Amino acid sequence: MKFVVIGGDAAGMSAASRAKRNQPDIEVTVLEQTEDVSYSACGMPYNIANPSRELDDLVVRSVKEFRDNGIDLKTGHRAEIIEPSLKMVSGKTAIGDSFKLSYDKLLIATGASPTIPKLPGFDLPGVLTLKNLEDGRKIKNFISSNNVKSAVIIGMGSIALEMCEALRERKIDVVMVKSRPGLLPWMNEKLSEMVSEELKANKIVIYDGHEILSIQKTKDGLKVVCADMELDSQMVIAAIGVTPNSELAKSAGLAVNPDRSIAVDKTLLTSDQNIYAAGDCADAYNVITGKKVWVPLALRANRAGWAVADNVTGSKTELEGIAGTAVFKMFDLQVARTGLTVSEAKAAGFDPADVVITSRSRAHSHPGNTTIAVHMIGDRRSGRLLGVQMVGKEGTAHRIDAPAVALHSKMTVKEFSECDLAYAPPFSPVWDPMLTAANQLSKKM
Amino acid sequence: MKFVVIGGDAAGMSAASRAKRNQPDIEVTVLEQTEDVSYSACGMPYNIANPSRELDDLVVRSVKEFRDNGIDLKTGHRAEIIEPSLKMVSGKTAIGDSFKLSYDKLLIATGASPTIPKLPGFDLPGVLTLKNLEDGRKIKNFISSNNVKSAVIIGMGSIALEMCEALRERKIDVVMVKSRPGLLPWMNEKLSEMVSEELKANKIVIYDGHEILSIQKTKDGLKVVCADMELDSQMVIAAIGVTPNSELAKSAGLAVNPDRSIAVDKTLLTSDQNIYAAGDCADAYNVITGKKVWVPLALRANRAGWAVADNVTGSKTELEGIAGTAVFKMFDLQVARTGLTVSEAKAAGFDPADVVITSRSRAHSHPGNTTIAVHMIGDRRSGRLLGVQMVGKEGTAHRIDAPAVALHSKMTVKEFSECDLAYAPPFSPVWDPMLTAANQLSKKM
Repeated sequence: MKFVVIGGDAAGMSAASRAKRNQPDIEVTVLEQTEDVSYSACGMPYNIANPSRELDDLVVRSVKEFRDNGIDLKTGHRAEIIEPSLKMVSGKTAIGDSFKLSYDKLLIATGASPTIPKLPGFDLPGVLTLKNLEDGRKIKNFISSNNVKSAVIIGMGSIALEMCEALRERKIDVVMVKSRPGLLPWMNEKLSEMVSEELKANKIVIYDGHEILSIQKTKDGLKVVCADMELDSQMVIAAIGVTPNSELAKSAGLAVNPDRSIAVDKTLLTSDQNIYAAGDCADAYNVITGKKVWVPLALRANRAGWAVADNVTGSKTELEGIAGTAVFKMFDLQVARTGLTVSEAKAAGFDPADVVITSRSRAHSHPGNTTIAVHMIGDRRSGRLLGVQMVGKEGTAHRIDAPAVALHSKMTVKEFSECDLAYAPPFSPVWDPMLTAANQLSKKM
Repeated sequence: MKFVVIGGDAAGMSAASRAKRNQPDIEVTVLEQTEDVSYSACGMPYNIANPSRELDDLVVRSVKEFRDNGIDLKTGHRAEIIEPSLKMVSGKTAIGDSFKLSYDKLLIATGASPTIPKLPGFDLPGVLTLKNLEDGRKIKNFISSNNVKSAVIIGMGSIALEMCEALRERKIDVVMVKSRPGLLPWMNEKLSEMVSEELKANKIVIYDGHEILSIQKTKDGLKVVCADMELDSQMVIAAIGVTPNSELAKSAGLAVNPDRSIAVDKTLLTSDQNIYAAGDCADAYNVITGKKVWVPLALRANRAGWAVADNVTGSKTELEGIAGTAVFKMFDLQVARTGLTVSEAKAAGFDPADVVITSRSRAHSHPGNTTIAVHMIGDRRSGRLLGVQMVGKEGTAHRIDAPAVALHSKMTVKEFSECDLAYAPPFSPVWDPMLTAANQLSKKM
């Protein structure tokens, strides 16, 4: 059995390793276009924050380790054409040689790439993105070799916000800008105000709703030109979002969604019965709506890689789907979400009721208390919990996992409100903020 | 409608306040034998740690506030006899006057009292317990007026362990002793070793398995006499455990369990249709086994108080039960549990499989990583998750809530292992320690 994997990061290497563990005599080949495999991409902002660390510290397992485990790991190999009818993949190596490989089962794990707007100047030197290790190295080198003291970040998503903290650590002045209004438009105003206050407290200047027209070179650096203003800096980070890398799949005739993610079933199979897709390039089922979504996150990539390996090696595995749980840190703030927002709930046909509460991170009178804000959403018709968003300084990141589990088990808000959650004064009020929100939402519904 | 509540802490005051909110014209009388109501008993160790704070800081709502809300709150009123056939409660006030009250509905919320072994010397001055605010004041006064520099804590439960930290904050040398072997016998050895190491690192001396015979007065203080040794100190804290205060209920002919907790149904009704019981004096259903348990914890007391109020004021409310979720902090360690231990699982008729794993609190290569140990237990026959115990330095307390929710919804280990939990490098590895445990346990089962 020949199992070929295109892409050597989270989903790809998880699948390759597990397939080999499951079935030691399977032939596993991985084609990776860069020289880097199996690294923690999410760790890059924290690594960039620290000039004394190398990006290679983020490598989880080396090329040699994978090869020692019997995986034929070919770096510098870019897959360019899949021929499903012949079960062949062909492409070019970094030095320009052609290669061609046959497979019995193929996994496309090509990830996603930073979205670059079709505007002038985004290709200028000093306009950087952050997706793979090489991007991280470029940013770090650019900062040191140009002694960067000022940067503009385009975009205000989680990577943009994580990069704020990283750049402030490097004593770089940061201005954030984006064309559309709203710092985090999916978030309730009360919560997003906490985020915006934290940014301001850390001297980040925020310009949302300023249409970006171009980036231009100046004498000392770069200029982001908006419809109504210009922003000068030495470096620009474009962190608008990412787009699934699905060109290969599309050219091979596989089903691809309008958002460009590759359509897969619960076994991660694409529209071809010998080709799987997993990770940031593929879609997934949302456990709340039962509908397809595309959420590029690390855990589901790893999990999907494992599921592909199990399916390829003969133990049929289905993944129910994702709740859309995500968390990020921004200076002292923790921002977390799981499930649907109010507008997502409406779009999915629910009749959402919601509450926003603020509570404390620790018990009444316990020193060190900070504020936690919780936005909780339920469905009036079924009583089901639909989603939770949270902002706070401590205990927010891990608190989101409880409602995430509740979403997987389709609990009602009332059932969730009756759960026996942990209490001790250093960690929460007797009624955890999550329960306070659930109690109030349950009453409202 | 006359609603009388015996006991003015968590369950009692929650019930009184909510009944009044639900139905403003209800007559609510609370009989509290001490002068303190509505305080955070769990906060006492942290308050004792800080000489500049008053125990009264732990009061959540004052007597006056309750009275202003229309509750007839009678402090210094000790209920002594309940006559169910007459629907009467009688007792004595602190100054010795008799009182007698009729009720339509009665709530017994008498809490629990520290267990005092029937051994000589436990009544000596300087042998102290910690349950109510007055106990806290006594400990604090004793420490300052005697300039206490050494203490023996008898018992090794959560209060004993929290008191270790409190006393070390006050620069008091602490020795812990108990008659039975095992620091935390319900805990897996690997996890309890982490606890014992943390205690040792903080210069706490642990003597488990030394049969305690008596406490004796010495020239300078007290001596705890064991079968094989003697321990000298200025102060002894007896923190062996607590016993439900059910004498009143028993004398009134209500059903009381062998462990002395008052038997209640899911609506919190005792064996008398006009008498409820809630809080540390009452039992509850365990959501995993469906059987009765007695777990004296603050959240379930508050929740049960609310449920009683709802039932008394006409909206029938049932509580499914508790998962037995508990957490405590001990120096830098967080110790958490939910559900059953292996031996509890066996006793309940399950066929338990379990794994103990250690993982990291943050992502691979993220600075500040610490170890988290997870002990997870599942049922071989049904595949169900049965319990989780955890020890770690960060993110342990809140992590326990996810499996607690899974226990409420009777998830299998496999289902739990597929939950979409949060990941970001500062907060967890891609595979959260909880998921790593679930993955391994699922494979084993």
